[in-house]
Amino acid sequence: MGKSRLEAFSDGVIAIIITIMVLELKVPHGAAFDDLIPLLPVFGSYVLSFIYVGIYWNNHHHMLHLVHTISGATLWANLHLLFWLSLIPFVSAWMGEHQFAAAPVAAYGAILLMCAVAYLILARVLTRHQPANRALADAIGMDRKGWLSIALYIAGIALSLPLPLIGFLLYVVVAIMWLVPDRRIERRLHDPA
Amino acid sequence: MGKSRLEAFSDGVIAIIITIMVLELKVPHGAAFDDLIPLLPVFGSYVLSFIYVGIYWNNHHHMLHLVHTISGATLWANLHLLFWLSLIPFVSAWMGEHQFAAAPVAAYGAILLMCAVAYLILARVLTRHQPANRALADAIGMDRKGWLSIALYIAGIALSLPLPLIGFLLYVVVAIMWLVPDRRIERRLHDPA
Amino acid sequence: MGKSRLEAFSDGVIAIIITIMVLELKVPHGAAFDDLIPLLPVFGSYVLSFIYVGIYWNNHHHMLHLVHTISGATLWANLHLLFWLSLIPFVSAWMGEHQFAAAPVAAYGAILLMCAVAYLILARVLTRHQPANRALADAIGMDRKGWLSIALYIAGIALSLPLPLIGFLLYVVVAIMWLVPDRRIERRLHDPA
Amino acid sequence: MGKSRLEAFSDGVIAIIITIMVLELKVPHGAAFDDLIPLLPVFGSYVLSFIYVGIYWNNHHHMLHLVHTISGATLWANLHLLFWLSLIPFVSAWMGEHQFAAAPVAAYGAILLMCAVAYLILARVLTRHQPANRALADAIGMDRKGWLSIALYIAGIALSLPLPLIGFLLYVVVAIMWLVPDRRIERRLHDPA
Repeated sequence: MGKSRLEAFSDGVIAIIITIMVLELKVPHGAAFDDLIPLLPVFGSYVLSFIYVGIYWNNHHHMLHLVHTISGATLWANLHLLFWLSLIPFVSAWMGEHQFAAAPVAAYGAILLMCAVAYLILARVLTRHQPANRALADAIGMDRKGWLSIALYIAGIALSLPLPLIGFLLYVVVAIMWLVPDRRIERRLHDPA
Repeated sequence: MGKSRLEAFSDGVIAIIITIMVLELKVPHGAAFDDLIPLLPVFGSYVLSFIYVGIYWNNHHHMLHLVHTISGATLWANLHLLFWLSLIPFVSAWMGEHQFAAAPVAAYGAILLMCAVAYLILARVLTRHQPANRALADAIGMDRKGWLSIALYIAGIALSLPLPLIGFLLYVVVAIMWLVPDRRIERRLHDPA
Repeated sequence: MGKSRLEAFSDGVIAIIITIMVLELKVPHGAAFDDLIPLLPVFGSYVLSFIYVGIYWNNHHHMLHLVHTISGATLWANLHLLFWLSLIPFVSAWMGEHQFAAAPVAAYGAILLMCAVAYLILARVLTRHQPANRALADAIGMDRKGWLSIALYIAGIALSLPLPLIGFLLYVVVAIMWLVPDRRIERRLHDPA
Repeated sequence: MGKSRLEAFSDGVIAIIITIMVLELKVPHGAAFDDLIPLLPVFGSYVLSFIYVGIYWNNHHHMLHLVHTISGATLWANLHLLFWLSLIPFVSAWMGEHQFAAAPVAAYGAILLMCAVAYLILARVLTRHQPANRALADAIGMDRKGWLSIALYIAGIALSLPLPLIGFLLYVVVAIMWLVPDRRIERRLHDPA
């Protein structure tokens, strides 16, 4: 079975997720620059969430690039990932509208955690389906970054209850870690085995 | 006529349907974990609807994979299916916001029923158009599961008026029935005649 | 220049237009079947608009199928069509929420009129660009139906001011006229010159 | 790495941006033509924003047409552009709802400015990646128009504080400047080196 529709559907869902988040930036009732100030936390939350959804699209793009066929299990592992991604706009808005209070920051981390777990499951399903694809298996060495992210999300959730800003900063750190391009995959792609 | 635009358009509509449902999860006014509790029924409704829309995308993907050309009737049978699917976010939100009360649960079942009927019509239009395509005709053996679903939806609608939770549980049962992959189609796809 | 991205972008915009209209079906505050009754006009409006947007997608699909290359003018003629289509959800909601009152019904017709004009312009731009493409020129014989629609829309707008329901019925008539498949194009497609 | 998914994802995001802007046209409470009058500024703002997003889609389409492979940096330069484009609906609504008051008009210009900067960065990343691609380098001669736009946006922002309508008019001028097709790229496309 081809992968193009899976990619197209995932692109569609991720494109909608990344775009509807901006609807949380409610148009201010006043017409002065000062009326934008209360929106700053929502905007900050939007920026981080935009980057996270962008990272997932990017990694999804890279990972599926290495895959040639997909199974029924892949379709569901992919929908499972899209499900958790679809909750990012909700926790992002909750976190922004309450100025990074403890519970929303922890909930934001919990959704990021579930996204990371769902991504790892998808990676596993893809490698199980074609174990001979060493390029992919190697790319899944990306696992290491995945597990580190999971550890940092759990730390972020735990820390956000007493110190929400520390939790938020940990999520920022994970995002920066992923923004740095994964040299291993790039190398594989430019120099396929 | 090619089928790629039909697939692309259907992917787009289904991707939007599955994603705008999350807009029903209204951001809580409070910033405590307890403020999430009133959202639980809406969340449960969202999970079931996400799975249903995912099942339809999955089956649509499989069925069109077996088809090579499409007619004008196919386009309209497909739009008819998309119409009923587009009402899932509405009944899903109604059901969730009223904690699975009788009328919303029955209405949810009625929309699921119409989606199933529309799917069967689409399958018929596709086989009528290329009767020689045995792989497809066989896949439409999926009919059996389709008719069983229709019977269960009708039972669910009838039961939901006195006992809404029983109706809801029947819809969950149908979803689980479809989550189990359809071995016959998968086999065909891996081993095409 | 290829046409695939033009098709993909148009599919995306039309898919979103057809789907966001359902957001006008506001979830009722009550949980009884009676609470659905006030939604009936909005629902009727949604059904007609869904069919119209479906007709445009269908015709767009057919027309571009006959085209091989596109110019810069095509891109803008296409965006012009998408602009007027994007206003259908707005007038559709206005018409539905005010139970088919005179001004909203006339405004609905005016938007349908502009969509039809924009479609004719797009068809002209496409034929001008490749006059040798007789299949297309012939398909644009579809013009006749287009001009008849325009006349009926104008009649509908004029009649809707004293008799809004007559205006609405005229729009329904035009939709039915388009739902009947255009045999000429279908024949061309199955039997290309 | 192929560019088709990058195009598909960008098409999806831009299609959503251009379409959700229409949600800012709130359905009037009254059913008379006069009830549309207060919407006129929002409508004017929508028209300009629709044209701008259309211009970006158009240029994006042309520019990527000339590119054959993309790097990881391209993906992020592209997401950066989509980020600023995603804020157009927000500033567009703010500007429309406050009848082109000073601060919203300046903010609108600031977002247009950031979009233009992000577009130039994307163009640079693309040429850096394949310096030998003269067709592209030449098209980026489009730079000149880009830098002129940036100058006009800055003038528009500065002027909009005392004279918001002048600022708005400058943005209209820039849009008209881009609506005129870029002959150089069109020529290249029809007559590739």
